[in-house]
Amino acid sequence: DLGQPENYFSRETLDRLSGKRTDKVWLEAQQRQPDTVYLLFSDLSPMICGADQTKLCRFRYQAVQDLLQKPATVLVFLGVERRKPSSPHSDQTSQEPPAWFAISSDEEAAELLKRSQEKNCCFPKTPNRDLLKLSEEEAGVVAQARSVLCWHSRYSFCPTCGSSTKLEDAGFKRSCQNAACRSLQGVHNTCYPRVDPVVIMLVIHPDGNQCLLGRKKIFPARMFSCLAGFIEPGETIEAAVRREVEEESGIKVGAVQYVSCQPWPMPSNLMIGCLAVAISTDIRVDEDEIEEARWFPREQVIDALFRGVRHVFTVPPTQTIAHQLIRHWIGMTSNL
Amino acid sequence: DLGQPENYFSRETLDRLSGKRTDKVWLEAQQRQPDTVYLLFSDLSPMICGADQTKLCRFRYQAVQDLLQKPATVLVFLGVERRKPSSPHSDQTSQEPPAWFAISSDEEAAELLKRSQEKNCCFPKTPNRDLLKLSEEEAGVVAQARSVLCWHSRYSFCPTCGSSTKLEDAGFKRSCQNAACRSLQGVHNTCYPRVDPVVIMLVIHPDGNQCLLGRKKIFPARMFSCLAGFIEPGETIEAAVRREVEEESGIKVGAVQYVSCQPWPMPSNLMIGCLAVAISTDIRVDEDEIEEARWFPREQVIDALFRGVRHVFTVPPTQTIAHQLIRHWIGMTSNL
Ligand SMILES: Nc1ncnc2c1ncn2[C@@H]1O[C@H](COP(=O)(O)O)[C@@H](O)[C@H]1O
Ligand SMILES: Nc1ncnc2c1ncn2[C@@H]1O[C@H](COP(=O)(O)O)[C@@H](O)[C@H]1O
Ligand SMILES: [Mg+2]
Ligand SMILES: [Mg+2]
Ligand SMILES: [Mg+2]
Ligand SMILES: [Mg+2]
Ligand SMILES: [Mg+2]
Ligand SMILES: [Mg+2]
Ligand SMILES: [Zn+2]
Ligand SMILES: [Zn+2]
Repeated sequence: DLGQPENYFSRETLDRLSGKRTDKVWLEAQQRQPDTVYLLFSDLSPMICGADQTKLCRFRYQAVQDLLQKPATVLVFLGVERRKPSSPHSDQTSQEPPAWFAISSDEEAAELLKRSQEKNCCFPKTPNRDLLKLSEEEAGVVAQARSVLCWHSRYSFCPTCGSSTKLEDAGFKRSCQNAACRSLQGVHNTCYPRVDPVVIMLVIHPDGNQCLLGRKKIFPARMFSCLAGFIEPGETIEAAVRREVEEESGIKVGAVQYVSCQPWPMPSNLMIGCLAVAISTDIRVDEDEIEEARWFPREQVIDALFRGVRHVFTVPPTQTIAHQLIRHWIGMTSNL
Repeated sequence: DLGQPENYFSRETLDRLSGKRTDKVWLEAQQRQPDTVYLLFSDLSPMICGADQTKLCRFRYQAVQDLLQKPATVLVFLGVERRKPSSPHSDQTSQEPPAWFAISSDEEAAELLKRSQEKNCCFPKTPNRDLLKLSEEEAGVVAQARSVLCWHSRYSFCPTCGSSTKLEDAGFKRSCQNAACRSLQGVHNTCYPRVDPVVIMLVIHPDGNQCLLGRKKIFPARMFSCLAGFIEPGETIEAAVRREVEEESGIKVGAVQYVSCQPWPMPSNLMIGCLAVAISTDIRVDEDEIEEARWFPREQVIDALFRGVRHVFTVPPTQTIAHQLIRHWIGMTSNL
């Protein structure tokens, strides 16, 4: 990205070709192409492989063909590989770039694993942690695939009338099967995947030399992170930052500046990262959500980020936008 | 807002006090307070009044008490008035600031209108146009109220199992009534109001002196506006800007810069406004969505914005973030 830090889960290696989602003939032809890539999901986890289990298992049509016939299978068209302008094949314009699909199957995980010819395959059990081990390229693909599959898994009934829905548009639409349903008149968000915008913010002390970090009870010992919260209906990004910071820490915020964002596919959040300047300093935490919040001086933050000095506190890993926001602040205010 | 233009629908006159949403005793006491304000909605439109029909009708408990008992009524707690630090009452700390609620009723519109003691009351029929006539303060309240009510109107069934749901948390949660439903195990977005993030962008020509505007068939004659589109699962704001611009106009975008955002309560969008710098210039519109797109030179844009010279083209009204983005670009590049 130009001028912006690239966050994990945001690399776009595929061109989504959303215009092709309604072209059934084209999609079926792509499904059968020998170089088309299929990712297999079980219980919302992608099959991964390799000694350190950090690579996505890629399947060809032959290996998944039977799954595509099963009624419980969900198939999502993810896009086609972007041609790199510098690639040696770029003048072979006759050859189309490979298409990618995600398959969610209800077949037993053990049975699905037998389909792979690679060693050490598995479906990781803790996506929040295990999906952070992929390459940037694969993480970007998983961000799209898992978010859409989570939506199918939770939204198979029409919220407007309670009827069952059918999958359309190559996995990007679900339409109510009750012909009399209001959701079929006009365009409504009930038919489309849900994305939940969340604000995540690093709050800077009025003195410019400390930042506010908090911890939830479920965090690993001594880890502190940025405050965050869901944007509510009728709210701007900036208003949500002010409200959530005040709710969770009692701190009042003045200026808010957008920094960068990150798709977070657990299940389908869009983390909108901001810097926020505090205009008060007395912390009073909301104990339902936050166990502790503190002002940390810049030197301690630098230690936690770069120096491996972990006796004071730790920050979340580099794959999180919380880490990148903290780094952004340190980068702005010092010459490391 | 500090350093940011204030967009229509974004003024926050109420403190949402989200922590009070689960406090039934407090909420019921607020409902009965003599200075508590109720807004009445019919078919997702608020009752407005006044000669030019630009004010929200405010009701007291007495006038709506019977509606609150009806099973089809939806009641949403909007918050309490923010105390202005400069207000003459600010030292009367004993007196709590008035609470606001929105009521959605299925009683006949004509019957509801009889409850008002004001003249010229109505429920406007075209929210996209009629809700733009309110004051900034009232627009901010309506943004929250209408978005939440639209969600109740479309999401009364559980999308996970199809059962009916019950309203909780003062209108900010719906829980499935099927005790065996997966949505009751853990925290899931199915229970919470939906907000759809949308990117809206002014694309600047590589020469810096023209901007790209498009028109849909449904626009008034000669009106052109910014391109816009829904953020998809697994996508950043910046990636969505590039994808939607290329889909709708064929133009490739390089740098993207966030400017400001706007809640748009038809039904519950968050419009995220950006400037985007084009790196190509040949327009090829997606005719399903866009009737025409053109590069407009800066002078023509200034005419359309400020000079009332409307023979070339018009831009959307000042209440739209599209208008504000165009103005922001002109303000950046000239000294008007
Ligand atoms: N879309 C959503 N998904 C999950 N939880 C939500 C959502 N919207 C509101 N919530 C509530 O917000 C809480 C987390 O608080 P916060 O992230 O600070 O807004 C959750 O425990 C839910 O009660
Ligand atoms: N949340 C949503 N609400 C309404 N329409 C959506 C949504 N997500 C995707 N769409 C589709 O997006 C189209 C509008 O295109 P765009 O605004 O350019 O993304 C609509 O006609 C729908 O087909
Ligand atoms: Mg939070
Ligand atoms: Mg919250
Ligand atoms: Mg919170
Ligand atoms: Mg569009
Ligand atoms: Mg579009
Ligand atoms: Mg779109
Ligand atoms: Zn339906
Ligand atoms: Zn349910």
